[in-house]
Amino acid sequence: MGILLTIAYDGTAYSGWQIQRNALSVQEVLDDAVARQLSSTATLLGASRTDAGVHALGQRVHVIADNITIPVHKIPLVLNANLPEDIRVMAAERVDDSFHPINDAVSKIYTYSICNARVRNPLVRRHTAFVPLPLDVDKMAEAAIHFIGRHDFAAFCASGSSVKSTVRSLFDVSVGTAVTGSMNGRTVDITLHGDGFLYNMVRIIAGTLVDVGCGKLQPHDVPDIIASRERSRAGKTMPPEGLTLVEIIYNIGGN
Amino acid sequence: MGILLTIAYDGTAYSGWQIQRNALSVQEVLDDAVARQLSSTATLLGASRTDAGVHALGQRVHVIADNITIPVHKIPLVLNANLPEDIRVMAAERVDDSFHPINDAVSKIYTYSICNARVRNPLVRRHTAFVPLPLDVDKMAEAAIHFIGRHDFAAFCASGSSVKSTVRSLFDVSVGTAVTGSMNGRTVDITLHGDGFLYNMVRIIAGTLVDVGCGKLQPHDVPDIIASRERSRAGKTMPPEGLTLVEIIYNIGGN
Repeated sequence: MGILLTIAYDGTAYSGWQIQRNALSVQEVLDDAVARQLSSTATLLGASRTDAGVHALGQRVHVIADNITIPVHKIPLVLNANLPEDIRVMAAERVDDSFHPINDAVSKIYTYSICNARVRNPLVRRHTAFVPLPLDVDKMAEAAIHFIGRHDFAAFCASGSSVKSTVRSLFDVSVGTAVTGSMNGRTVDITLHGDGFLYNMVRIIAGTLVDVGCGKLQPHDVPDIIASRERSRAGKTMPPEGLTLVEIIYNIGGN
Repeated sequence: MGILLTIAYDGTAYSGWQIQRNALSVQEVLDDAVARQLSSTATLLGASRTDAGVHALGQRVHVIADNITIPVHKIPLVLNANLPEDIRVMAAERVDDSFHPINDAVSKIYTYSICNARVRNPLVRRHTAFVPLPLDVDKMAEAAIHFIGRHDFAAFCASGSSVKSTVRSLFDVSVGTAVTGSMNGRTVDITLHGDGFLYNMVRIIAGTLVDVGCGKLQPHDVPDIIASRERSRAGKTMPPEGLTLVEIIYNIGGN
């Protein structure tokens, strides 16, 4: 039997999704709760390996076990009672044995959030990056459009990562803003929807859009940077705290 | 000489603004930083006594000292380097000796934020209250309008508080929503702008609007509850974590 969990987490306190030695991962904490409450022999497979400090609203986790007796609709309640408040099971559903959380994912949505103010807003400090330079959001939105489509994103992939192809499709890249109070600047949210993302791709695209926002690059520079396939031409890798895995979209099984 | 600071804080870790024995207050932490960096004889007067766990984006603090030598525009930088990351000085400005941060305040803006979802969103858990019941936001907005105007808000004041008059003016009360991801429900934000607020008034108005949102009360019940002046007729006091002091508006001195 397979169960597909949708989980949300504040990644601030964790070394990322995946279990690793000498550091606390989200997977380890969830694994403990599943072993205690659902099945001691269950194995967990996450759909996305979020990095240290990265957040999720819609991570998916395939729980494989043949001896789960708790009704599926009660699983979120049971697990949440045994998880810290920075990890929540949002939903649980039954999936076919043939379901695979990584291979069956059609697309993913990420948001990269930036606190754009002279002084960092303490209320959003855990889930936004901080950019004190004024950002021209209209130019960022203009630049964002150039990322949409099927491209070789080699320039937007952490160097040293081994992957067969660096071609990916982005269906939408948008830039929005929200304001809170008159003294606290605003939050700039970059939302990306694509069929797959290279290692650090969202954080490097965000860094490139920040360079456009503060005038270091122009929107029309983006097509050239993509075409160059050179990591050094793109912006810097933005810090993990601004990144949130919002949603993973499936055609079959879950969703 | 007087300096007016605008400060923002995540109130999660504090016993509120005001110094008290055996508990860490925002004032105590700020007082330490001011004594070390600006003047060891300075006295601090906050414009608003926020309660334990309540947040601020625009708290104002009058720093009275005659021996501050640091240029005013450098004060935020100097203090922020000596404050924990959950307290930030957003701005500093010189004010007349006649300025009084409480008496000269013309009006205040508060927001009460609610995570309205089946499961609590871990990313906003520190600065929103959690209401799992579905809320009818249109009805809440309809009810909110009844609070606008000059009223005796005795029904919306914590019992036992001693205050000369319970009459206050609310210039605006609005209800807005924001959605993040498909699985995480939404945030319902109640924003109030008024010339003054009784003890727990925002949290009791928020509790009354939640009662309207889940059908326990109807929008047209609000005028009767106000007229009754009975605390027992209004909704419950919502928890502190949803409350943020957004802004304090002055005619003179600061702002």
